Amino acid sequence: MEELVSLAKRRGFIFQSSDIYGGLQGVYDYGPLGVELKNNLKAAWWRAMVYERDDVEGLDAAILTNPLTLKYSGHEATFTDPLVDCRNCKSRWRADHLEGNTCPGCGSGDLTEPRPFNLMFKTQLGPVDDGGSFAYLRPETAQAIFTNFKNVMDSTSPKLPFGIAQIGKAFRNEITPRNFIFRVREFEQMELEFFVAPGEDEQWHDTWVAERLKWWGQQGVNENNLELYHVPADELAHYSKATVDVMYRFPHGLEELEGIANRTDFDLGSHSKNQDDLNLHSAVTPNKESNARLAVQNLETKSWVVPFVIEPSAGVDRGVLAVMNEAYRVETLENGSERTVMAFKPHLAPIKVAILPLKRNHEGIVAKAKGLKRELQALGLGRILYEDTGNIGKGYRRHDEVGTPMCVTVDFQTIEEDDTVTVRDRDTMDQERIACADLAAYVRLVSDITALASALDLNVEDSRMTVLGGEFAVLMALQGEPDKLAQFKQQLETLCAGNNLAYIYRDTESRPPNQSVRPYVATVMALDHPGIVYAVAQFFSARQINIRDMHTDTRPAAHTGTPIFSVSLVAEVPADVKVHSLKAQFEAFCEEADLDGHMEAQR
Amino acid sequence: MEELVSLAKRRGFIFQSSDIYGGLQGVYDYGPLGVELKNNLKAAWWRAMVYERDDVEGLDAAILTNPLTLKYSGHEATFTDPLVDCRNCKSRWRADHLEGNTCPGCGSGDLTEPRPFNLMFKTQLGPVDDGGSFAYLRPETAQAIFTNFKNVMDSTSPKLPFGIAQIGKAFRNEITPRNFIFRVREFEQMELEFFVAPGEDEQWHDTWVAERLKWWGQQGVNENNLELYHVPADELAHYSKATVDVMYRFPHGLEELEGIANRTDFDLGSHSKNQDDLNLHSAVTPNKESNARLAVQNLETKSWVVPFVIEPSAGVDRGVLAVMNEAYRVETLENGSERTVMAFKPHLAPIKVAILPLKRNHEGIVAKAKGLKRELQALGLGRILYEDTGNIGKGYRRHDEVGTPMCVTVDFQTIEEDDTVTVRDRDTMDQERIACADLAAYVRLVSDITALASALDLNVEDSRMTVLGGEFAVLMALQGEPDKLAQFKQQLETLCAGNNLAYIYRDTESRPPNQSVRPYVATVMALDHPGIVYAVAQFFSARQINIRDMHTDTRPAAHTGTPIFSVSLVAEVPADVKVHSLKAQFEAFCEEADLDGHMEAQR
Repeated sequence: MEELVSLAKRRGFIFQSSDIYGGLQGVYDYGPLGVELKNNLKAAWWRAMVYERDDVEGLDAAILTNPLTLKYSGHEATFTDPLVDCRNCKSRWRADHLEGNTCPGCGSGDLTEPRPFNLMFKTQLGPVDDGGSFAYLRPETAQAIFTNFKNVMDSTSPKLPFGIAQIGKAFRNEITPRNFIFRVREFEQMELEFFVAPGEDEQWHDTWVAERLKWWGQQGVNENNLELYHVPADELAHYSKATVDVMYRFPHGLEELEGIANRTDFDLGSHSKNQDDLNLHSAVTPNKESNARLAVQNLETKSWVVPFVIEPSAGVDRGVLAVMNEAYRVETLENGSERTVMAFKPHLAPIKVAILPLKRNHEGIVAKAKGLKRELQALGLGRILYEDTGNIGKGYRRHDEVGTPMCVTVDFQTIEEDDTVTVRDRDTMDQERIACADLAAYVRLVSDITALASALDLNVEDSRMTVLGGEFAVLMALQGEPDKLAQFKQQLETLCAGNNLAYIYRDTESRPPNQSVRPYVATVMALDHPGIVYAVAQFFSARQINIRDMHTDTRPAAHTGTPIFSVSLVAEVPADVKVHSLKAQFEAFCEEADLDGHMEAQR
Repeated sequence: MEELVSLAKRRGFIFQSSDIYGGLQGVYDYGPLGVELKNNLKAAWWRAMVYERDDVEGLDAAILTNPLTLKYSGHEATFTDPLVDCRNCKSRWRADHLEGNTCPGCGSGDLTEPRPFNLMFKTQLGPVDDGGSFAYLRPETAQAIFTNFKNVMDSTSPKLPFGIAQIGKAFRNEITPRNFIFRVREFEQMELEFFVAPGEDEQWHDTWVAERLKWWGQQGVNENNLELYHVPADELAHYSKATVDVMYRFPHGLEELEGIANRTDFDLGSHSKNQDDLNLHSAVTPNKESNARLAVQNLETKSWVVPFVIEPSAGVDRGVLAVMNEAYRVETLENGSERTVMAFKPHLAPIKVAILPLKRNHEGIVAKAKGLKRELQALGLGRILYEDTGNIGKGYRRHDEVGTPMCVTVDFQTIEEDDTVTVRDRDTMDQERIACADLAAYVRLVSDITALASALDLNVEDSRMTVLGGEFAVLMALQGEPDKLAQFKQQLETLCAGNNLAYIYRDTESRPPNQSVRPYVATVMALDHPGIVYAVAQFFSARQINIRDMHTDTRPAAHTGTPIFSVSLVAEVPADVKVHSLKAQFEAFCEEADLDGHMEAQR
């Protein structure tokens, strides 16, 4: 956790709030990169929960909440933690967090019996402090969804089942905030209240547990770090018939990331007038103060039914912490140095593309770089950063550390020679030169394809890009269900047709079991003739050696100007192949074919 | 205002908060459409202020605020309104809102002298209520930008001038909330704090006033409804050297939409330690509690300078109200009926495209409609709505009323005949059939072009689309600065090249002064021959009559099957042309050219 907290502060993801005044316990601020990451995570949730469904409406209700709402929701009576007072030092502690029966402050054993302490913040409303004019800061976003049930019904006329989704701040006066942004006093929730016909609730509960697990996977959370916890009956909240918690292996331990509860008809029933007419399943407090019937009328039978509610309720801050934890890795490179990478899914990355001019004071380079930034920004993919620190290598490392999927470098070749830029991939560290005119199309293509794959629940296992002249090719390995892959192929066809692109789609063969390999670079030069590439490839494949990368080039020889053709490739030599003997065979092969060949370990 | 409030509730834009418990004064909730509109407005601001600039970073800080922050900002001492108490009925009122010296509650004249009432909400923090453990709900987002100044500096290493932008909730305990979402207790701000070298502050102040006016124009706010108010010296806030308010003609009167203040070095100076070393321009409260120096070091001279701050501070809710007010119009149609239209700029519209299946229970139509919805949703343009109420005409009107720029209808022709859908434009009400295969490309093209125009500060005056076979053509009239138009032309070329599209760009000629015209429909039929269109067009243009719409069609005649060519057009006949005589001339023209012609007033 320490490395993550340190990186979060150093790189501008998350700061302690009111830092310069010693902070405010359990309250954090999101910095320049944190705000983008958090907004991207919220947008991904909204897309999945509202945009991509046909049965969910959005809402954005206020934080200040009428006390009656939280009276009938049960929060005034039951939203408490047990507290004990130390009679010696007058401090106050959460009873279920004590170790033994001693005060963690002064060590005294003179503690009171536990008393319930309400976790809701309240504040005086209006100018007259008569004790009655106050509002709560909402302890969850859910309640405003219930109190707006009729407003949303009246304005959008949905039919069961349907949901109302909301993202927003909530507040709990935690006694002992801890574990960075995990347990805090001010936090953000992403809550869906999904209304279903009574009797269909258990099936929908299962559906939503599965949906939510899938969604966390799409955010880059490894399923091995997720566990379902079926809350036992005696631990259920007062409104719940059943709750399944999605637990995540946080750096500090396995804890709740999201809770998916079957809230029955408790909430709508509690906030309704004329409850006796509604045939409620739940035991609710009699309500004479509500002015609305929160129910759905069956147009044929004319009878009113109070829907059951399935509630997937996720913490934004906990999600950010989980996503950062999953993305964080320290890699040892081939030259022995280390690099820190935040391998965010591209749709979550705070910066989508960084444009790095080689010189910050060179007018031509700067103008070109700023122009490319504007062009990519207009694609609407998120933040495109123009960053003119002038040290490209350091720039790459800095952007690895904040998870920028792609860096684009503008240099003298760009403006003096061929109007190309270097595109550098975060994950593979591959660098390719691509024409400026193609850059926007390339960035959009990659974005479209990954979005398409993500929408179909496919995983992009790996991708490579290569360029020649004005053309570029992208190879992408996808993994997923066969029917989804078939849909992908179909939609890829539409996508390519609309963008004047060609595609090849191919099912992969099963690969031999993974074994350790050593990369060797083989280079061959000769006067231009057609059989070289085939012959060289044949040499390696006949020996079951995989070729990872291959480039060809033709350039005039010095003095004579004769065109010299060269092939350069990286061969993955399995551990059980004797390199010494392989090299000898390669030399013999070159001699026989009259090629100028060379082979050495890749550095 | 009443129509707007009513539409806002009826259509799910804005609801009174805690409605079912009689509301909560000065607090509102955003419904399914309101949340999209508000998010779109916030996204437009973030795009303009963070993404499209190279000198601004974002922030998202907490609402709960350390009291020390608001002590040194001056809010504890000065953020007050003057209140009077009625000794008769014990009510409390804002002194500067009284009419005469009588209590608005009971009419008594027995009022106290005005006393200052602090507008900040406070709440107890932690379990021990000792009077000292409390936090404020921030009264503005600005302060957390100042207290995070060093954190942002350290993590992003910017150089002056640079800004930090933030969007978020703020809270003020207004005595008399009023005018719908104009003066409320919980609201949202979009604030930029732009840090500049002292001495450059006045020039940057002017720059930001101009920038912000331009931005409001891009959101569809008519410049005639905006006024600048230069706040007189004796009304300036304690931190301000100069403030310019952008005033908007709200339904209830001319009031502040955004304030642009020169806050000098007051805030950074107030929150700094070692203030005496900093050569501050402002008079600040001595600060022994801050642990940070909020200043920028000149790397050459090693001296520290506290930047001046220019603050464009806009209200999100006020922005929503202004944008809704601008968009709202009731049009009388040619058939005498009325339609209500929210003519939002497309980037602000809550729903981008509505997909309407003609039948909600027809499997083929439903599947096609849902497929198109998914395809358009994947473009990432915002919410695409699948809406299966089955009444297309009512659907169009409903979407006019909520400002959906485009409706797409899927009917039997779509699935049984030619795989085309009807695309209906909100503003022109034109309907065209377009191939399903082209729909996504068309929607993206329109979105790209309007985004490009908006980025270049060009106004899309009008646009038309027409379709023939698998091809479509879009005509768009743009208005703006010549150099921006030149840039548009250049970028249009790139855009079209990347999408396999052709374009024609042409400067418009000046038009004769606007005069009132009457639309007449002229129809001409003949055996197919090439000169008809030209001849008919020539007839009208020779008489200075504008042709608004023209369609041609060829279809086989009944019985014989001979292809009959027809031209149908709408001519705008100026008021000073005698229609009787024009009709006679048209008849003569048709007779002479052997055409079957007809002309009548458009209904």
